Amino acid sequence: MGMTMAEKIIACAAGVESAKAGDIHTVELDRLMSNDGTTHLTIDMYHNQLKHPQIKDVSKLVWIVDHNLPSDSPKTAASQKKMRDFAREHGITFYEGEGVCHQVMMEKHVRPGELIFGADSHTCAYGALGAFGTGVGCTDYLYAMVTGTSWLLVPETLRFNLTGKLPDGVYARDLILTIIGKIGANGANYKAMEFAGEGLKSLTMSDRISICNLCVEAGAKTALMEVDEIAMDYLHAHDREPKALFTSDEDAVFAETYDIDLSTIQPIVAKPHFVDNVVPAKESLGVKIDEAFLGSCNNGRLEDLRVGAELIKGKKVAPEVRFLVVPASRQVYQDALKEGLLDIFMESGAIVMNPNCSVCWGSCQGVIGEGETLISTGTRNFKGRAGHRDSFVYLASAATVTASAIKGEIATADMV
Amino acid sequence: MGMTMAEKIIACAAGVESAKAGDIHTVELDRLMSNDGTTHLTIDMYHNQLKHPQIKDVSKLVWIVDHNLPSDSPKTAASQKKMRDFAREHGITFYEGEGVCHQVMMEKHVRPGELIFGADSHTCAYGALGAFGTGVGCTDYLYAMVTGTSWLLVPETLRFNLTGKLPDGVYARDLILTIIGKIGANGANYKAMEFAGEGLKSLTMSDRISICNLCVEAGAKTALMEVDEIAMDYLHAHDREPKALFTSDEDAVFAETYDIDLSTIQPIVAKPHFVDNVVPAKESLGVKIDEAFLGSCNNGRLEDLRVGAELIKGKKVAPEVRFLVVPASRQVYQDALKEGLLDIFMESGAIVMNPNCSVCWGSCQGVIGEGETLISTGTRNFKGRAGHRDSFVYLASAATVTASAIKGEIATADMV
Repeated sequence: MGMTMAEKIIACAAGVESAKAGDIHTVELDRLMSNDGTTHLTIDMYHNQLKHPQIKDVSKLVWIVDHNLPSDSPKTAASQKKMRDFAREHGITFYEGEGVCHQVMMEKHVRPGELIFGADSHTCAYGALGAFGTGVGCTDYLYAMVTGTSWLLVPETLRFNLTGKLPDGVYARDLILTIIGKIGANGANYKAMEFAGEGLKSLTMSDRISICNLCVEAGAKTALMEVDEIAMDYLHAHDREPKALFTSDEDAVFAETYDIDLSTIQPIVAKPHFVDNVVPAKESLGVKIDEAFLGSCNNGRLEDLRVGAELIKGKKVAPEVRFLVVPASRQVYQDALKEGLLDIFMESGAIVMNPNCSVCWGSCQGVIGEGETLISTGTRNFKGRAGHRDSFVYLASAATVTASAIKGEIATADMV
Repeated sequence: MGMTMAEKIIACAAGVESAKAGDIHTVELDRLMSNDGTTHLTIDMYHNQLKHPQIKDVSKLVWIVDHNLPSDSPKTAASQKKMRDFAREHGITFYEGEGVCHQVMMEKHVRPGELIFGADSHTCAYGALGAFGTGVGCTDYLYAMVTGTSWLLVPETLRFNLTGKLPDGVYARDLILTIIGKIGANGANYKAMEFAGEGLKSLTMSDRISICNLCVEAGAKTALMEVDEIAMDYLHAHDREPKALFTSDEDAVFAETYDIDLSTIQPIVAKPHFVDNVVPAKESLGVKIDEAFLGSCNNGRLEDLRVGAELIKGKKVAPEVRFLVVPASRQVYQDALKEGLLDIFMESGAIVMNPNCSVCWGSCQGVIGEGETLISTGTRNFKGRAGHRDSFVYLASAATVTASAIKGEIATADMV
């Protein structure tokens, strides 16, 4: 009986011939990402709870400051200092000011076929390069850091066969919101979401990262895409080679198979307070907004900034709206600067920020107040996600967010 | 008997022929600036304590969000919303995301001969355009907003006759720190600091703003400079004309006169925890730094960014240092972007932020932790100014700050 991509990656990491959904395997991890959300807690446990503190293979560790950057309080500064000092002392690869962790990982580290733990839920983004990325808490992270290994219950796979092509003005964000709306926020609980089919070839790497990144919002353990020429080009452009290239076998067993015709997708908005609370964007038109956010590991790449800049060029942000534009990484920032996109945003009245998690995480940049409404390309719209518990977050594509920033209310790109 | 510039501006604003130090006059104010540091308090008083709330002349008011921008907490968001809503309701000129208040005022509003109250201590910066700017608390601001007037005790004037030219690699910041060190943090208490002489002509508008801005750190009520061709060029480039042009009379009475030969000035550092705790920069060399800040109303202009960019071009920020670069306004940001300066900073590993008060104010961006050391072009180095009460702030020029960011310890420009 054949194996899925997820099963193959786990079998490889476990050093066994075969792995099946439902098995538990001890696995060798290829890479361990952690950010300033929880690394200070990992370090505290490392120092205070281990009898024989050690790092099995420091070359696997990548630590990234992105959540509160630059630091917003003495407390944050202290926990980041703890992280920085520990990384320096142990020779851990460390980034600060380079961008949102997942984007930095995609640009600099992730390789097809790898099994990667990240102390952040959106680690599933790495599936865009055919890697099994999954989010773990800091206790599991610590165990992996000390031993280089962990255990995994092999997930079942939901297979999404994509056909066709997204219509003009419809984006990967609309597609993944549609899927999450369809299967629900628990629709992929502890499952791998695998995307395949001819339709995949029409999606850029940026699209693919956006899609895989958001799969955790359907509860997925990981997301995976077959590595094709587009993915290999990206990998080579970033000076890397695959660990291994896996595809699901013809006779692999999928828990469920969905056929999705990309040409049927339309602009989508996820309404407060759940990611699966989706409606066609046209059903949310006219909702007044106070703030708009274009950024995050989900939609802060050059391709997203191009979409936004093209829409807003020669126009102005509505006077009652703060429009925050936050490139997802230093590389994205510099590319956008050179293409003239940042100047277009600044000219429009937008506020261009340093690469970081910013409003998506809602802890120190562009925090919204009581009764305020945000439209965002961020990852989540849970109650209070972007600030006050009585505030409202709508999720949408870079196009819908930018159009809304111009109009001062939820609008689609064809309206500006 | 002749009058000083300060006396003439007050006489004009009071509608009298003559004003003398020690007199008290009721004055008509030309402009009333307030920022998000205290405007919400002004609004609360306006609503809750006035029997007949009114604004005498709304065209005089300029409100600017710059201190916590973008907002860092639901509480900040709420107080900024209060400000935004009130401004919109009353038709008050309102800026958000445009830059640090004083820089925005210089670019868009200040006119020679005006008397301006600002609810911020560094309002004395406006003296660079021959305007009498002074900082007031929000109660005095409210009175002025309701009546269009206030009262002023006419200050004595300290006159600084400048000769010569600053040596290469020495900046206006070094000059004003030298002066503050010389006369002390209380050396100009409630006095006008007037700068004149041939040496003034060698100073750019950016230099002049930097000098006037910091006079409050010597306790000055205001700072003033004669309006010459350089100032008029700046004014015209920004589409404005003077209200009136005043100079001190030959026989004006000065409380004290200082002769300063600019060619004798050298790079200066103000050590923790007072602005007048100055030493030659070479006496502070080697102090390890954790963070460097290039920005603020004092030193975040294009000229400052040019100095920093030229030094760091092709070099890297020391790995243990966070180097925050914060253009003082949207205009400065866009000019720096077009000149390629932002790209140079990004290439060096610096963190380029949105125009705002940032680390100078130390409340939400680049806050430093316990035991950490910052070198800054910000305005103040008081205990806890940039974060934890047990942290350390050194003040210096853009050149010294950038050199230090490269070296990872306090260094002067000739060392990199």
